Formats: sequence, structure tokens, C-alpha cells
Amino acid sequence: MSTPVIKGVIGYTITPFAANGSVDLNALGKSIDSLIQSGVHAIAPLGSTGEGAYLSDGEWESVVRFSLQQIAGRVPAVVSVSDLTTARTVQRAQLAQACGATAVMVLPVSYWKLTETEIVDHYKAVGAAIDIPIMLYNNPGTSGTDLSVDLILRILGEVKNVTMVKESTGDIQRMHRLYRATGGKVAFYNGCNPLTLEALVAGATGWCTAAPNLIPALNLALWDAVQGHDLVKARALFYRQYELLEYITRRGLPTTIKAGLKMLGLDVGAPRLPLQPLDAQGSTYLKGLLDELSAQS
Amino acid sequence: MSTPVIKGVIGYTITPFAANGSVDLNALGKSIDSLIQSGVHAIAPLGSTGEGAYLSDGEWESVVRFSLQQIAGRVPAVVSVSDLTTARTVQRAQLAQACGATAVMVLPVSYWKLTETEIVDHYKAVGAAIDIPIMLYNNPGTSGTDLSVDLILRILGEVKNVTMVKESTGDIQRMHRLYRATGGKVAFYNGCNPLTLEALVAGATGWCTAAPNLIPALNLALWDAVQGHDLVKARALFYRQYELLEYITRRGLPTTIKAGLKMLGLDVGAPRLPLQPLDAQGSTYLKGLLDELSAQS
Amino acid sequence: MSTPVIKGVIGYTITPFAANGSVDLNALGKSIDSLIQSGVHAIAPLGSTGEGAYLSDGEWESVVRFSLQQIAGRVPAVVSVSDLTTARTVQRAQLAQACGATAVMVLPVSYWKLTETEIVDHYKAVGAAIDIPIMLYNNPGTSGTDLSVDLILRILGEVKNVTMVKESTGDIQRMHRLYRATGGKVAFYNGCNPLTLEALVAGATGWCTAAPNLIPALNLALWDAVQGHDLVKARALFYRQYELLEYITRRGLPTTIKAGLKMLGLDVGAPRLPLQPLDAQGSTYLKGLLDELSAQS
Amino acid sequence: MSTPVIKGVIGYTITPFAANGSVDLNALGKSIDSLIQSGVHAIAPLGSTGEGAYLSDGEWESVVRFSLQQIAGRVPAVVSVSDLTTARTVQRAQLAQACGATAVMVLPVSYWKLTETEIVDHYKAVGAAIDIPIMLYNNPGTSGTDLSVDLILRILGEVKNVTMVKESTGDIQRMHRLYRATGGKVAFYNGCNPLTLEALVAGATGWCTAAPNLIPALNLALWDAVQGHDLVKARALFYRQYELLEYITRRGLPTTIKAGLKMLGLDVGAPRLPLQPLDAQGSTYLKGLLDELSAQS
Repeated sequence: MSTPVIKGVIGYTITPFAANGSVDLNALGKSIDSLIQSGVHAIAPLGSTGEGAYLSDGEWESVVRFSLQQIAGRVPAVVSVSDLTTARTVQRAQLAQACGATAVMVLPVSYWKLTETEIVDHYKAVGAAIDIPIMLYNNPGTSGTDLSVDLILRILGEVKNVTMVKESTGDIQRMHRLYRATGGKVAFYNGCNPLTLEALVAGATGWCTAAPNLIPALNLALWDAVQGHDLVKARALFYRQYELLEYITRRGLPTTIKAGLKMLGLDVGAPRLPLQPLDAQGSTYLKGLLDELSAQS
Repeated sequence: MSTPVIKGVIGYTITPFAANGSVDLNALGKSIDSLIQSGVHAIAPLGSTGEGAYLSDGEWESVVRFSLQQIAGRVPAVVSVSDLTTARTVQRAQLAQACGATAVMVLPVSYWKLTETEIVDHYKAVGAAIDIPIMLYNNPGTSGTDLSVDLILRILGEVKNVTMVKESTGDIQRMHRLYRATGGKVAFYNGCNPLTLEALVAGATGWCTAAPNLIPALNLALWDAVQGHDLVKARALFYRQYELLEYITRRGLPTTIKAGLKMLGLDVGAPRLPLQPLDAQGSTYLKGLLDELSAQS
Repeated sequence: MSTPVIKGVIGYTITPFAANGSVDLNALGKSIDSLIQSGVHAIAPLGSTGEGAYLSDGEWESVVRFSLQQIAGRVPAVVSVSDLTTARTVQRAQLAQACGATAVMVLPVSYWKLTETEIVDHYKAVGAAIDIPIMLYNNPGTSGTDLSVDLILRILGEVKNVTMVKESTGDIQRMHRLYRATGGKVAFYNGCNPLTLEALVAGATGWCTAAPNLIPALNLALWDAVQGHDLVKARALFYRQYELLEYITRRGLPTTIKAGLKMLGLDVGAPRLPLQPLDAQGSTYLKGLLDELSAQS
Repeated sequence: MSTPVIKGVIGYTITPFAANGSVDLNALGKSIDSLIQSGVHAIAPLGSTGEGAYLSDGEWESVVRFSLQQIAGRVPAVVSVSDLTTARTVQRAQLAQACGATAVMVLPVSYWKLTETEIVDHYKAVGAAIDIPIMLYNNPGTSGTDLSVDLILRILGEVKNVTMVKESTGDIQRMHRLYRATGGKVAFYNGCNPLTLEALVAGATGWCTAAPNLIPALNLALWDAVQGHDLVKARALFYRQYELLEYITRRGLPTTIKAGLKMLGLDVGAPRLPLQPLDAQGSTYLKGLLDELSAQS
């Protein structure tokens, strides 16, 4: 495997909204700076966590421009450009490239189920339109499309600039099969927080996660422990942060990360309706987890 | 049950595209006229079949305006106004009402999973913004959200103008429970074509379907047979059209209906990418089904 | 379709146990007589409801001998002979035939998943060992094996005396496909109580059910209404007994039927451990349903 | 956690059958000796792999007596005593204890779905009848019952001699939750071969597996690498044996292990019908895997 352009802990940004519902770029800037200062190895703007699917085209464009300016090359940036139509996905990918993205991430979101040919051609269209690498993203829970390992291998074979695979099914066997089928030569990334220990041990090149908005030191320490082959430490670090990783994933990332950021002092507003702010019970639970982790470290 | 505003066979419109990808309103007009002339009892513009999710806001607006003008009150019209955000769903519902829609249809499409409260509040927001009835639409296969019967009952209780339920899970037990829980007083509609015989026998008030674009006489005859309590005829009619109903549902409605309309002489273009025109094998199969049904009737 | 040997409402027997855990043949005789006097069209001893899987070989043998003697040809009898091994299934089928069974029922129970060849060969072995017809039984919920429609068709083609299909997946589409693939010529039976209205309307030849132990008049009236093509009456009768059909199926047939029989005056003991008698809450609910149905009729 | 009685690689025995279908105790003795000589840390007779569910009561009894005599305390022995009825499970557990078993394994096999109370009481009955520890076994794929983590915790709390948990769902999150809920104090065992690397890294006390019948050195080396915290070596060893672990699990353990043993020189006969010997295509694939692994080591 040639050295992948993205490696390590890849932090997702949220998209802050002001009280009137508009995007709050000022708070976005602060959250990006905070992520970078915490030491994440890369940043992924406008993904699922960033409520990219809930933005208008104009909002989406302003967020991508602002985010890449703010990151300013301090770390690599992989921009999620997924859209229901191929045309808009291509437009977004081209815009991301023009703004300086290191790579783009493409999830095959669907309303009507897509055939394999339709999925492959979708990736081909994006691949032909840009020069930077594509991270293929599989997450049937949000996209409605499950890419089998065989289909992922076919796309890797047919679309030259698809060079990274982000797996969020939560099924570690997908990673095993991908690893074996490519002789360990394809860079794969974990997108399922509660599977991180296993994914890294199984050979993942990186961990795409919203958690560094809240507990970056623990996330990075886990990564470092596995890289240093310290199994005892890695296991202890993983179980220490397990409930938080499990909770934010299960309860929804924009909802929980925005609530957590406010607890930590950065007000980034509420998620966009129909998504609502974390309710009282959830807030108490999340606060408890954050306090406990903060006391331990 | 007070007489529901919508009853019988409710035909879905497709959205024709010209070769350059723009909406072809001329062909749309023809397809609407054809549906009405065939005898459908109501029309549902811009639903799943109409690729509503794939349209830009501007396109969506022009299609809803045009469709309601073209229908011109000849039959009731229920407009699908679903969007990922509550704000745009409300805007679309208000526009549909302003243009003369009889009712709107709302599917709780989701990217992030919604809590029950978020779903209820979404319906409340739409309900408060309009004066016409709402048809609640449950279709986890496309929306990613499965509304349990209990949740549907809660929404029926809390949002006054939700008066109709369209069920597309394909699970007839949902209809049974809904029927029993409301003493048969809630109007429910079948949205799963291969379940139509059972749904009508179980008491459905209507059948929302794209099939009348291709085989309206058979669809209406099935409806009439059940209304006339002719079980032997209803069974025969259902099995006669079963393969077609099953195929268009499984293979995707925009893809198959557009292919079928072209076979029948109305060119409405291709579905929007990443959706592709029906492939050669599918076309041969669909052509065979249409020829067989045409020869029989 | 040649006239099938079994048609109509097929009542399942329970297996009564005395307080010391042994089989209570006296109570079994009473329950069989009661079923026949109620008017069921056939009887199915030793099925899932009869706790056949929980009996020792000796018990199983004594129950089959006794049951067929007691039925004494008053109605046809289809005996469930399923076992985990092919050898014992064959033995049981031969014993059932020797005792005068009209037909045998075979469910491909599995511990280790079976290949299609293994399933087909299992049916072939049974078919070759007896002269009476076999009712193939598909119920993945209890057997762990789901027979696809294609596999069922293959078995129908390869094993001459498999002439009936009992479908208990609860998926009406299986029946539709079976009907269409055989031109309506294969006798299929409904084994999922809450699907009965639909299955009969879709053309089922019979309804295999434990419900006639408790509400035979309602079960038979539903059958008669569909046979008489009285759709309005059939729908009303179905919804009247729906909660009971749904409850006994969901909560477990031996557990609920034994509890219900005691409420109706016939003590057949408890199901065999680990199955326990219906608990207090369930008993109250079931008693309420039985009282309500008894008051209505 | 007090030191668990069973730790490390726990090898499953097969049950050899002679050509006439009877149990071949001579071959069984050889396979047990071979397992022990290969270095496995414990032996599990009569589990799923041992076709325990397919044996008559008499056969089961002779196999358990013989196996424990043959093991003769050289390594701990955990005997699977699961049966559909509580009474026979208790009898088998008592017999296993009388014959010198170190522990028994209990899978809640079901025909009719069990309530939580029924499951707990089943374990209580076994626990009260013996003095040796119980390994609770969760494997919905074969038993039809899925024990949630909460239910497992309840059983651990209510049945004193349930001290070990074998998890075979293949869902690593179950192990994480069990670990966190008990502060890492409950001994859990991996029963899903292709999950072994992850389970051991997550803290599993042992690996219950049929694989040591075929590739004991690789299995033990993987265990040793994780115990020695050599992550790089563990990953390499895991991926080396991955296809074989995945294949025997997916294709069925009795079928593949018996085929593999014959390839390695020990004829243990065929599995019992309806299970058939591994077919030609499977044999070629398995032979290829064994040859490749043998060449590498």
C-alpha cells in the first residue's frame, strides 16, 4: 500500500446554527481550531455529523469554503460531498477540490434502491470529475445502501481515485474480508465508534469520528496505544471511553456532540429540525459521562 | 369514519425529464391527462414515483404548480411534500395548499434516526401550517423510519388534520392492528402493490399506486371487484396483474414506469442519475408482461 | 388440482400432561372428541402445538397410536412426524402410516443449517418410505430453516408424494408466488393465524390452527364465509377473532391453548418445562378475550 | 475475577460414526488424544460440533462416559448438556458431573420461544442439580433464543454456579457490554471463530473452537501472541487462518471438521443425516486451505 493521504484520528466537524437558524460560521471556526489544537490528524467537514444533508445548496457551499479556509492546510481535509443525485455530488466534489480539499468522501445515499451498475457509475462520474482521491463510505444505516465487500472491490478496481474505504456497518468481518482480498493493501477506516479497538487491531488506517469534539485526548491516546502495540493500555483506554462512544453513536452524533460542546463551553446551537436538542434525560447521562472521563484523566 | 376525502385508486405521476435533464412539463401534462382519462379516482403528484426527492427546490415548485393546474380539480390531488427538514416540508405543504391540493402526504424521511417526539413534532409543525388534511405515510424502505402502529395512533391523536394513513411496509398486520385499534374508523391506504388484494379485503380505503400509468383498467377492475364483493373475480384479477405489480415495486417505480410508458407510446425520458433507464433484460421482461396483459384484456 | 385429501379447518391437538409429568391420554381423548364434535374438517396430532418436539420417543409413539385410534377415521388426520434426524423422521412417518394417518406433515427442523440438497434428500427419504401424501411445512421461526418458494417448487417436482404445502412465515407473498408458479394447482395451507383472512382470499385450501380448541365456531364461520364469497361477513368475523388469533400465536400455542382449555373446563395440565403455564397477566388477558367472544356469539 | 476453571483454547470434539451409523468410540478416542497432544487447554465434548443434538439418549450417554474416561483429567472438560426439556438437561448435567466433568455448558435450545422467566428458571434448575460450574452459552443461530446482555447479567446474578459466558452471536458489542457491566470480572469465551482476534483483544478468557481438530498449532499460536501482547504477530496469525475459520463456521462445523480430519488421515465417518458429507466443491476448497496453511507453517 502506498502511504495513504489520510491516516490516524479524523475528526468530524459539526455545523453550528445561530438562534435564527442560519449557519454560525464564527462558532464553526472555533470548533475547527479546537479540533486541530487537540491534535487530530485530519478533519472531515460536512459529513453526517455536520448535518450536510440538512443544508441548502447555498449553505453547503458557504460551509465548505469557510471550513477549508479555516483549516488552511494545517491538517488534511476530507470533505463529504454526497448527494442524492449524481450531478450535485459531482458539483460538490469539484467545489471541494477547488477549495483545497485533500480528498472527498462519497456515500451512495439513495431514495430508490440502486443497482450495482448504478452505484459503480455514480463513483465513476465523481472520479472522472476530480483529481483528488475519493474515500468510499459505506453506511447502510444512513444511506439505505449496503455496499458488499465484493462491490467495494469492484469499485476499487474500476475507479482509479477511489483509494480509501470507510466502513460503518459495525461488522468487523467486512474489514477482515477487505483486508484479505487486497492482501492488506487497501486503506480502510473505521466509522463505527464502538468498534474502534477491533478495527485498529484488525489493521485500520484511521478512525473517522466525531468524538474528538468532546474527548480528543482519550481518542488520540487509544490510537497511539495501538500504534505502539501496547495491548493492555489500548484495551483499558478503549473501555474507559466505551460508554461515550456507544452513546453518541446510538443517540445521534449531531444531537449529542452539540449538547456536549455546550457542556464544555462552546455554544454551537441546536441541530436542525426535525432533529431536536438532546433532551433532559440524555443531557444528564452525557454530562455524567463527560464529568467521569474528565475526573479520570 | 366520516367520508374520507380520498378514496379508491390513487395514481402516482412520474416526472418526465427532457434529454437535457430539465423537467418536461409537456409530457407531464400528457401523463396526467392519461391517468385521469383512464378513470383513476385521485392523483398523487411528486411522490416517490415522481422522483420528488431528486428535484431541486425550483423544479419541485414548478412541478407542483403545473400538476395542480393540469389536474384542475377533475379528481382530488394529494401532493407529497416530504423533505428532510421540517422547515422545507412546511413550505412545500403551504405551497401545495395554495396551489389547490386536496391533501398533502408526509413521509418522515430521515438521515439521522428520529425519536418519537421528533417525529410527532414534525407532523405537528406541518399540521399547524395548513388547513387541508394530511396523509401520514409509512415506508421504512425509502424513509429509513418505521412508524409503529402505536406511534401512528399517537400522531392521529395529537395532530388533528392527520386523517389518513398510507402503509407501505408490506406487512398486512399493521393494517389489522390499525383497524382494530380504531374500530375500523381510520382511513388507511395500501402503498405496497403486491399486497393490494389483501389490503382491500382487510378494509383499505384506497390504493396508492403507480401502476395505472401502465395498466389502469386492470387496477380499477380489481378495485371494483372488491367493492362489489366479488371474491372470485377479485382473486383472478389480482393474480392476473400480480407479476407486473411485484416487478415494478421490486425493480423501482420511476425506472419501470418510465420504461413502460415509452413502450406504450409516451416518451417521458429517463429517471435522474444515479438512477438509470431500465436495462435490456428488464425491458424485455416488462415488455413481455405488458404484451401478455394487453392480449388478455 | 386434483381434490386434495385435506381441506378446510385443520385443528391441532395439544398433548395433555398429568401432574406427574406423564402424558394424560384420557384428557387427550376428550380434547380430540371435542375438536371433532365442533366440526373441524381434519385433525393434526403432534404438531408444534402438541409439543411433539418435547416428547421422548416412547411418548411420541404412544400419543400417535392413541390419537389415530381416537380419531378413528371420523375426519382425516395429518400427523407431524418431524425430527432432527432423517432416520427418526422416516420411522415416525412409517409408524403414522401404519396407524392409519391420512397424511404426514414434515418440517425440516435443523440444528446445523441444511443445504438445499440436504433438505431435498430429507424429503426424498421420507417420501420413499411411505405411500401416503406429505404436507411440506415451512416455519423458519420454529425450525430455523426457511424454504424459499423456489426450493418448495423443486421439492414438489422431485418428491411425488409431497402434494401439500403449509406456509407459516406470515408472508402472504410466498403464497402468491406459489399460486402463480403452479397456476393455482398446488394445495397450500395457512399456518399463521393472524394471516388467515388474506390466505383464504388468496386461495388457501386450508387453515392449520390450534384455535378450534378454544373458538371453533368462529374459526369455522370464517372459513364458511370465504367459501361462500361473503366478503363483508368474512372481514367482520376475522376482525372479531383477530386479537385472540394474534395473541395465541405470539405468546405460544401450547402455553395459551392449555390455559384456555382449562378456562373452558378441560384440564390438560401445564406445558412441559422449560415452558411454563401462562402467567397471571397473560391469563387475565386471555380470559378477557374468551369472555368477550363468548358474549358476542 | 477469581481464576476461571477454564482458560485458553478449548477444543470441541466431533462424534465419529461408523459406516453402519453407530458411534465409533475408537475413532473418538483417537481424536481426543490428538487434540490433547496438540496442546489445547481444555476439551468440550458433545457440543454443537459433536452433533449432540442428533444423538439418541443412549448414544449421548455412552459418548459422555467414554469421552471423560479418555480425557482422564489430562485437561479440563466442559460438557455440553443442552436439551429441549429442562428435565433431560438436568439429567445430562448430573451424568456429566458424575463422570468427572469440570463444568457443563448450557445453551437454551428452544422450539417454542421462551420467556425470560422460563430461561432463568431453566438455568436455576440445572444450577441446583449440580455442584460444578456452568458455562452459559448464547448462540441464537442454533438455539433460536438470543440472550440479551441484560438477561445474561440477570442469570449470572441469580444462579450462583453460572460463572462463565460463551458468546457466539458474532457481535463484539455483546462482549464489550458484558465486560463493562461487570467491571471485567466475568469470564467470557468466544464461540465465533472469525471474531477471535477481536474477542481476545477485548478480554476473552478463552476461545471455544473446533478448529484445533485441523490447525491446532495456528490456533494456539494466535492465543499465545495475544497473551504475549504481540499485536503484529497476532494480526498476522489471525489473517493467516482467517479463511479457514470463516469457512468451517459458515459451512457447518461437523461437516467441515469431519471432512478435514479425513484429509489429515483420521477417518471419523460422515455427519448424521440429514447432514451430508462435504460435497466435492467444498472439499476442494477446504483441501486447498489446509494445504496452503500446512505449506506456510
